[in-house]
Amino acid sequence: MSTDHGSAGVAGAFGPEPLTPLVFLRRSAEVFAERVAMVDGDRHVTYAELTDRCHRLAGAVAGTGVEPGGVVSVLSPNTLLSLEAHFGIPIAGGVLNALNVRLSAGELAYIVDHAGAEILLVDHELEPLARDVLGRLERPPRLIVAGGDGDEYERWIDDARPAAWHVEDETQLISLNYTSGTTGRPKGVMYVHRGAYLQAIAMAAQAGLDGDSRFLWTLPMFHCNGWCFPWALVAVGGVQVGLRRVEPAAIWRAVREEGVTHFNAAPTVLTSLLAHPDAARLDRPVRVATGGAPPTPALLERLERLNIEVTHLYGLTETYGPAVICDWRAEWDELPPDERARRKAYQGVVNVAGGRLRVVDATGHDVPRDGETLGEVVLRGNVVMHGYYRDPEATAAASIDGPGGAWFRTGDIGVLHPDGYLELRDRAKDVIISGGENIASIEVEAALASHPAVLECAVVAAPDEHWGEVPVAFAVLRDGAAVEEHELIEHVKQRLARFKAPKRVVFGPLPKTSTGKIQKFVLRQRLRGEPVGPDTADVSSG
Amino acid sequence: MSTDHGSAGVAGAFGPEPLTPLVFLRRSAEVFAERVAMVDGDRHVTYAELTDRCHRLAGAVAGTGVEPGGVVSVLSPNTLLSLEAHFGIPIAGGVLNALNVRLSAGELAYIVDHAGAEILLVDHELEPLARDVLGRLERPPRLIVAGGDGDEYERWIDDARPAAWHVEDETQLISLNYTSGTTGRPKGVMYVHRGAYLQAIAMAAQAGLDGDSRFLWTLPMFHCNGWCFPWALVAVGGVQVGLRRVEPAAIWRAVREEGVTHFNAAPTVLTSLLAHPDAARLDRPVRVATGGAPPTPALLERLERLNIEVTHLYGLTETYGPAVICDWRAEWDELPPDERARRKAYQGVVNVAGGRLRVVDATGHDVPRDGETLGEVVLRGNVVMHGYYRDPEATAAASIDGPGGAWFRTGDIGVLHPDGYLELRDRAKDVIISGGENIASIEVEAALASHPAVLECAVVAAPDEHWGEVPVAFAVLRDGAAVEEHELIEHVKQRLARFKAPKRVVFGPLPKTSTGKIQKFVLRQRLRGEPVGPDTADVSSG
Repeated sequence: MSTDHGSAGVAGAFGPEPLTPLVFLRRSAEVFAERVAMVDGDRHVTYAELTDRCHRLAGAVAGTGVEPGGVVSVLSPNTLLSLEAHFGIPIAGGVLNALNVRLSAGELAYIVDHAGAEILLVDHELEPLARDVLGRLERPPRLIVAGGDGDEYERWIDDARPAAWHVEDETQLISLNYTSGTTGRPKGVMYVHRGAYLQAIAMAAQAGLDGDSRFLWTLPMFHCNGWCFPWALVAVGGVQVGLRRVEPAAIWRAVREEGVTHFNAAPTVLTSLLAHPDAARLDRPVRVATGGAPPTPALLERLERLNIEVTHLYGLTETYGPAVICDWRAEWDELPPDERARRKAYQGVVNVAGGRLRVVDATGHDVPRDGETLGEVVLRGNVVMHGYYRDPEATAAASIDGPGGAWFRTGDIGVLHPDGYLELRDRAKDVIISGGENIASIEVEAALASHPAVLECAVVAAPDEHWGEVPVAFAVLRDGAAVEEHELIEHVKQRLARFKAPKRVVFGPLPKTSTGKIQKFVLRQRLRGEPVGPDTADVSSG
Repeated sequence: MSTDHGSAGVAGAFGPEPLTPLVFLRRSAEVFAERVAMVDGDRHVTYAELTDRCHRLAGAVAGTGVEPGGVVSVLSPNTLLSLEAHFGIPIAGGVLNALNVRLSAGELAYIVDHAGAEILLVDHELEPLARDVLGRLERPPRLIVAGGDGDEYERWIDDARPAAWHVEDETQLISLNYTSGTTGRPKGVMYVHRGAYLQAIAMAAQAGLDGDSRFLWTLPMFHCNGWCFPWALVAVGGVQVGLRRVEPAAIWRAVREEGVTHFNAAPTVLTSLLAHPDAARLDRPVRVATGGAPPTPALLERLERLNIEVTHLYGLTETYGPAVICDWRAEWDELPPDERARRKAYQGVVNVAGGRLRVVDATGHDVPRDGETLGEVVLRGNVVMHGYYRDPEATAAASIDGPGGAWFRTGDIGVLHPDGYLELRDRAKDVIISGGENIASIEVEAALASHPAVLECAVVAAPDEHWGEVPVAFAVLRDGAAVEEHELIEHVKQRLARFKAPKRVVFGPLPKTSTGKIQKFVLRQRLRGEPVGPDTADVSSG
């Protein structure tokens, strides 16, 4: 045994031990053994049972021949299978690859092949899709179907010997989350044990999770590993409530019948919740974290009336989900309602995991904190991905040098306010450049959304011979509401510089991703008269 | 720039970044800039001010010639100076050595010399003691006096240029906390940035700290760095309330006038709080963490009536303070009051920082989880010290081999219950061996304390020709209470095996450490007729 007498960077007698979210399950298995860990339909699984099942899943994975570092893909809605995969696969030393259930077979086949998955765990409802995926692969992974007739998964883990875990190195991979922009192939974002542990703790702290929390799974677990909430809930010993289909009626029912205290959802999901006949004030507050787009003042006000407290978060698949949170300042309570709503829509500051955020100009220098100067948001810290799997070129393209080393380029454009809070103005690619002026589509959308007839809307650039680009709006009206195109355009002109007003308004439903984000690139393709392919779902969270 | 394609332990493009509690100050300086960080007497210091002052302190430390890894000692009650030292010294890359203000000049001189401190920051009230310490040293550190006439400290940091921090390695030292048992010289327990970061987050999570928390400094900050609470409060943006003297009247006043929501204190401090005339039910719940000794059922019941919620913690200086927490299980709410009180007095399970705890027999094997078999408590994980400073022999003596490497031997004797909860039965050295039977002094003390006349008590071994050792009790009675020795002995005999009852009861005040723990070795010395030296304060927390 040795100990060091100096002060810097030494291996001591007593540590350190690797950081991994697996310690949360080890601890909760003891502290909360008889408490319910997950409610999945009619099924109630205690922490003791969950722990046993995850160790059996690990044994089954290892018994199937997956070595440490091997990849296991999962295709499932938010059920017990998804939760168990978040622990059981890493217990075996494996890498979890949670697949977006809304992708096409072709896209899924690309991901499964690129990840080199050796097993594909699939929920029985998605078995046909999984078989389609396998049929496209030269070396298909072994398929295990959970639920349905015979429930192969149950027999598979029943027959397995529980495996113990040993994390050699906290920077080893825990998961691969594939993200795709509007161009190119999906990229495999690499999460490591250390980052997952720290983001889980940060999420628990910032969402106020504890042993009394009951969390509803509206956010897909395949989306940034559910922002690391599967691990965070187990850390605090809370209850996770599964949800097969993210539908307003099912959410309202679960919130009321399962005593839900927290859920996470994109603003479009919240909009559809409000529009549903079951919408009515709750008898206790429910905390909701929202991201993907800033909540509008109108949305915030209506949620408040229903006793739903909203926190706005910001992040991307590359940042373990929300690396940034609009941490509320008590002094803002005193502001007038519209100013409060504006603050609520700020993306905010880095979360307590303690990363760093900058907004930089084209030369990589910090923009002034004036709430005006646009720049690209760059991030660094323990909740930034390790890199893109088997894609050093894409990793390099997403990085920029800065203090401490490489910083991750988000592609998002925003300003820093004097108090250090970030406010996004647009995706880099969503900025509309009209007659040499930059128009932030978010700003035009907020102006449009303030019209009482508008349920939701999106503004994108249309090619224009004279101006280069002009803004064009797509809008969905509230049930029973009626408004003319010119009225909406006038409404915006009364609120913004006239050149920012849309030249056209197209009425009709908006194309959305599986996570509820509006697919602006589809709208742009429409305006350009381009064909819209079937494989366009955007799984990024930014 | 490089990225790795494999799955294990690789340095990626984007991280990781060192874990250090300094990120909490960086973040809170932005998020909570105008909010009060500390109330110290009449002084209210905002997070913006605190941050500026800490960076100036760092500049002053560096400007005085302290290189990274150099040690700065601090001798102060729980004031702004103590809080600033927890950030300013590490910002400079220095190592904080917070000194126990109750130690003698001789003992302090040994510590300052052993640590190789280059600066001694002292509160003006303690200047005479500090000068006495310096007079004993061949190479005394530079003395800086805070407060009082002229306030040298204020001028020193005013004149300094704020320094920026850069933590190269998260396993570098952040502090040295000297602990002494009943024998031998004080040992310097080494804390590293990573451990301090993780313990601070764990404490914030388990104590339920957030931006609305107002924490009163009854626990000395020189005691395990205040269980890492100086860092935890800054992480959540709470308010810290200083306290020069830990006296019941001052505590009651602060709790009522400063809106205190949390404080930490040993059971003896809580006992004195209850005995004070100001004791009355609070109009809102206050959360108290207690450690050093298990709270008795009577104490818990009376605190509950005052609206004070108690959590029992357990740890030692070597474990960053409380590595173990009696995490409450909802199902225990249904137990009868005496069973609930028994559970409350359990030491519990490892905290959410996720260390590991075992109870082992003399051969290093786990004892059964039967609630009966005694063994020594051993710990491992990120909140176990790096080792003893410049003392590899003591480090080796405190370790035992086990899964994963070296485990820290606490010297505490306990049992594991079937549910995994630890219950201490005694310090190894406090076990009384009478006629070959082990008697846990804690058990006898609990029986004695259940007598209504007893305010507090301690039971230790007295040498006995026939039995080897016999238990002897020392007791303090409540104001106005009267009881005879034989009545107390009979009271115990009715509750425990007769051989466990004390042979004698000595009435009178109990010797205590600066942190309120009863000094049993002083009682043992009295029984042996040995002289009791002046330098016997025990600074360990176990």
